Amino acid sequence: MNNFVYYSPTEFVFGRDTESQAGELAKKYGAKKVMIFFGKGSVVRSGLLKRVEDSLSKAGLEFFEFGGIQANPLIDKAREGVEVAKKENPDMLMAVGGGSVIDTAKAVAAGYYYDGDVWDFYLGKCKPEKALKVSVVLTIPAAGSEGSGNSVITNMQTNKKLGLRMPLLLRPVFSIMNPELTYTLPPYQTACGISDMMAHIMERYFTNTKDVFVTDEFCEGLLRAIIKESPKVFANPEDYEARANIMWAGTMAHNDVCGVGREEDWTSHGIEHELSAIDDTIAHGAGLAVVFPAFLDAALQKNPSKVAQFAVKVFGVQPKANETETAKEGVAKLRAFFKSIGMPVTLTELGAEHVSIDEAVEHLRANRGDSIGFYVQLTMEEVKDLLRAVK
Amino acid sequence: MNNFVYYSPTEFVFGRDTESQAGELAKKYGAKKVMIFFGKGSVVRSGLLKRVEDSLSKAGLEFFEFGGIQANPLIDKAREGVEVAKKENPDMLMAVGGGSVIDTAKAVAAGYYYDGDVWDFYLGKCKPEKALKVSVVLTIPAAGSEGSGNSVITNMQTNKKLGLRMPLLLRPVFSIMNPELTYTLPPYQTACGISDMMAHIMERYFTNTKDVFVTDEFCEGLLRAIIKESPKVFANPEDYEARANIMWAGTMAHNDVCGVGREEDWTSHGIEHELSAIDDTIAHGAGLAVVFPAFLDAALQKNPSKVAQFAVKVFGVQPKANETETAKEGVAKLRAFFKSIGMPVTLTELGAEHVSIDEAVEHLRANRGDSIGFYVQLTMEEVKDLLRAVK
Repeated sequence: MNNFVYYSPTEFVFGRDTESQAGELAKKYGAKKVMIFFGKGSVVRSGLLKRVEDSLSKAGLEFFEFGGIQANPLIDKAREGVEVAKKENPDMLMAVGGGSVIDTAKAVAAGYYYDGDVWDFYLGKCKPEKALKVSVVLTIPAAGSEGSGNSVITNMQTNKKLGLRMPLLLRPVFSIMNPELTYTLPPYQTACGISDMMAHIMERYFTNTKDVFVTDEFCEGLLRAIIKESPKVFANPEDYEARANIMWAGTMAHNDVCGVGREEDWTSHGIEHELSAIDDTIAHGAGLAVVFPAFLDAALQKNPSKVAQFAVKVFGVQPKANETETAKEGVAKLRAFFKSIGMPVTLTELGAEHVSIDEAVEHLRANRGDSIGFYVQLTMEEVKDLLRAVK
Repeated sequence: MNNFVYYSPTEFVFGRDTESQAGELAKKYGAKKVMIFFGKGSVVRSGLLKRVEDSLSKAGLEFFEFGGIQANPLIDKAREGVEVAKKENPDMLMAVGGGSVIDTAKAVAAGYYYDGDVWDFYLGKCKPEKALKVSVVLTIPAAGSEGSGNSVITNMQTNKKLGLRMPLLLRPVFSIMNPELTYTLPPYQTACGISDMMAHIMERYFTNTKDVFVTDEFCEGLLRAIIKESPKVFANPEDYEARANIMWAGTMAHNDVCGVGREEDWTSHGIEHELSAIDDTIAHGAGLAVVFPAFLDAALQKNPSKVAQFAVKVFGVQPKANETETAKEGVAKLRAFFKSIGMPVTLTELGAEHVSIDEAVEHLRANRGDSIGFYVQLTMEEVKDLLRAVK
């Protein structure tokens, strides 16, 4: 087990009607003027935004709106947010939405105290030293951003989708999580969220760090819980218990409780980000459903042991004499699971047949160098091959 | 799943040599003058106290010592600590030790800002509204106090051992956890710690709250990891990986990641506290190794289902046609495990044959009323019977 720091200071307020506590919570954390981030209007239509604003008013807080954030959120929108924040001087940013909205709020939180371009942080040119407080009312269980210190933003001018990781600075101070708010999520978006949270667990699970039994158990248990609950939310989108387990699993998948003490991989995320950086209509979770099994197909050729463990522990595969065969059956089961919830497992099914594999992988090379990965190291040629195998 | 708040803001700094960061961490959290709590001197003899003090000096911090805290820590010692703190005015309390030392520091942290007797908090007469910052250098993985907002203190004058739970106030700001510091723990104390942390998980696991799959998986996984790693630490006390997994499991057992969204039971802790309140030479963990299986024997008669699930998932018992039989085999395996690590499973083996069951249970009645429990409700007569069954 490697040395680690685990720091997850977010206060998670979970359950029915919890959005009515938004005002009191914001006040408790010292807010006087709140900048509310949201997306394309579903939170307006559902009435959620109004309920949150009513709660802020009731607590005597000022607020103003910053809407129109899209999926695969753009640096231009974050820059606009930084400008607005610098003019309006809020003391708390509240994201009402999913990962894109939260990640944009985090970008603005860091950019507010910086004189240069906020994209500099994502390019790794410099590090934010201070940030505005971010809070969340979560509507999409997927990105885990409600409990993480990460933000991922896309720059369409340079076709780059890059992440910023500042656990000590960008973790939300509180996150309100009401599973009822996810009842109206369309099946495709629900499935993308499930795929994304499973990938967050698997990026941590597939490691060469030995003797990480506690976190292995957490990873395997979370994956089993998600696989068990998923069919229920498609059969009955208003199944509170299933929605609640999925929602909490999405947070636990990405707040580091599954990752401490181990080297993590993140190859699949690296590859997927290049696809959706080229075509921002590709949903991140759907892209991962294609890329992750493809990555495992390649990985198990070099290093089958953890994939075999995954097969046995997560999907109940009977161990075979040949570890590679056990591993292969696990990947087949993973792919079948993704199919069963309506996810694509090929680039064509993803609607990405027009994305040039060569171009995507050359972007990956520019961002990551000539090889990628920790569980297995893959050359850029091998990455191209694994994508070609799932055309 | 019930509504819940999950808030675990402690910064855990885990791994080899991490005690050398004590000074920098204390400084980061604003300390200028640190009151160091410790026990009967093993941290002096091992040189750990000196290393911690050197680290504080290096960071330019003042400090003073408050030692001599015993196992099953006493309210008299906490009162003495409050007096000392009020005179010396530290701005951070640093516990270098295990649960008893940490719990005493938490009592002093709350008592410092209170004009009355700190025992009032444990009696539930009033609630602390403010507390000094507590930090930890952990030497015994057991109580989970390094990541919890709980403190348990004994009053020998009234034979009461009572807990105070203030998650928002009493969680340590940081906890330093170096598994190497546990190499010298004697086998009996190591085993007591393992028993205690398993009990923390099981008190949460045995619940009637339905559909808590994520936390069930966490509980079962942690128990399996502990059971897998335990023999290794007895075979080789300097097995870093095994010590590390056990140490982290002890924290995860009690920082609420296993308990959110569910009604918890805590009957076994309630019963055990009455035994060690009468005889403070009884080690809490050893007492739990006797009481918990005895509790489960009684519980499975009324409500076998979760005990049967425990048997199958944690101990790999083959499910039988009769759920009660499956459950019984699980309890037998739990008892066999406790025996295998040198724990007692009867009151006589515990050295508690002289403790009056009637007296202990009458104290329980005085503290808890005529019945106790959530997974099953037990009358005080039933509690007496379950203890008599393991005389």
